[in-house]
Amino acid sequence: MSFDLSPIQTARVETIATAVLAVETSGEGFVEITRQLGRFLHKIKARDGTLLLYLRHTSASLVIQENADPDVRTDLLTALERIAPAGAAWVHEVEGPDDMPAHIKSMLNGVSLQVPLVGGELALGTWQGVYVAEHRAQPHRREVVLQFLGSCEQR
Amino acid sequence: MSFDLSPIQTARVETIATAVLAVETSGEGFVEITRQLGRFLHKIKARDGTLLLYLRHTSASLVIQENADPDVRTDLLTALERIAPAGAAWVHEVEGPDDMPAHIKSMLNGVSLQVPLVGGELALGTWQGVYVAEHRAQPHRREVVLQFLGSCEQR
Amino acid sequence: MSFDLSPIQTARVETIATAVLAVETSGEGFVEITRQLGRFLHKIKARDGTLLLYLRHTSASLVIQENADPDVRTDLLTALERIAPAGAAWVHEVEGPDDMPAHIKSMLNGVSLQVPLVGGELALGTWQGVYVAEHRAQPHRREVVLQFLGSCEQR
Repeated sequence: MSFDLSPIQTARVETIATAVLAVETSGEGFVEITRQLGRFLHKIKARDGTLLLYLRHTSASLVIQENADPDVRTDLLTALERIAPAGAAWVHEVEGPDDMPAHIKSMLNGVSLQVPLVGGELALGTWQGVYVAEHRAQPHRREVVLQFLGSCEQR
Repeated sequence: MSFDLSPIQTARVETIATAVLAVETSGEGFVEITRQLGRFLHKIKARDGTLLLYLRHTSASLVIQENADPDVRTDLLTALERIAPAGAAWVHEVEGPDDMPAHIKSMLNGVSLQVPLVGGELALGTWQGVYVAEHRAQPHRREVVLQFLGSCEQR
Repeated sequence: MSFDLSPIQTARVETIATAVLAVETSGEGFVEITRQLGRFLHKIKARDGTLLLYLRHTSASLVIQENADPDVRTDLLTALERIAPAGAAWVHEVEGPDDMPAHIKSMLNGVSLQVPLVGGELALGTWQGVYVAEHRAQPHRREVVLQFLGSCEQR
């Protein structure tokens, strides 16, 4: 094991910009929102800072994962189904057999995350995409609160 | 799938306010702290920004989940117990049979998260509450570091 | 259950400082980076604020866990292997049998987190360490983006 620290860049923190991104899902699965994040950041001329994401729901989640081979997302769904199977004798069944598994998956994956922004670009890894993971069987409208904290270009 | 971005609100980032919320748990289960977060934000007259939460422990976690039907929390505990059962021949048993499962649950759920604040209110979803999840069998005193980053009303 | 809120400390948010920490892993396991975080914060003379960490990969994760008994990390690996076993008939097998389990573990643990900083010190709990969790079998070079948001000492 070894460690290497890059040169350090500093900027002023001046602005917080907030908007809500509504995402229509088509039932269980992953919806990539990376491009929508780029549009938000472009609109506010964001430069250096961090992008905070927050999902206002308890049966969906936010996930950063590979956006190359779609088989990866298929297997992620399989893995979640094995961890939180429908029909596993949950007490909370009033909202249908897919609801309690959806809550469990949402708890494990989480509903908040942040991605750094350097020189106007999200510092995502080469194969990383940002996704809303829908855990309910039916389509839903999901709201993601986007907040950029940092410096923007002068307009 | 479709996407819709709301109008963007901007504010100055000026202040970071930090406090520690101590929470006495009564053994395994979820303790809601949403109201305590509101009190902290009210005290500092927070307006627009983000609330960062950090739990200073490795056998409990921070969770955002449904605060309507308590059956949901019962099933979440069951799900965690199935993922990380006590008595599954863990190597680390020196602190009791509930300790290693507690570490696993803490890793999966996580100990840091953030919630946006818009116009002085936490932008939680309709059914969302913020919880300290206690994973040990016995009561514990847990510390959550609260940090608000953003703008406050003039006093 | 009871709650107790400490006195509130406020500081100006002025600076965002960003660097990339490269970490060479030696295959599956946990690499502690707590000391490297301290060096970064010392270099920029950070005082009050928050340290944001972001891992630019989809087959490793960021974890805060006990840094006392190494048996805990052994059991954490066992738990992850049970949740996402190799050889469980994943569709995505083109990158080897350890790749898809690594993606699942990365999704569950997550790749972003934050730790508060109070008076120049990370407010970690007594037994908490910050780790890069390598989920691939082979050694990899992993990049963690570090961002400090807050106030620094005058130089």
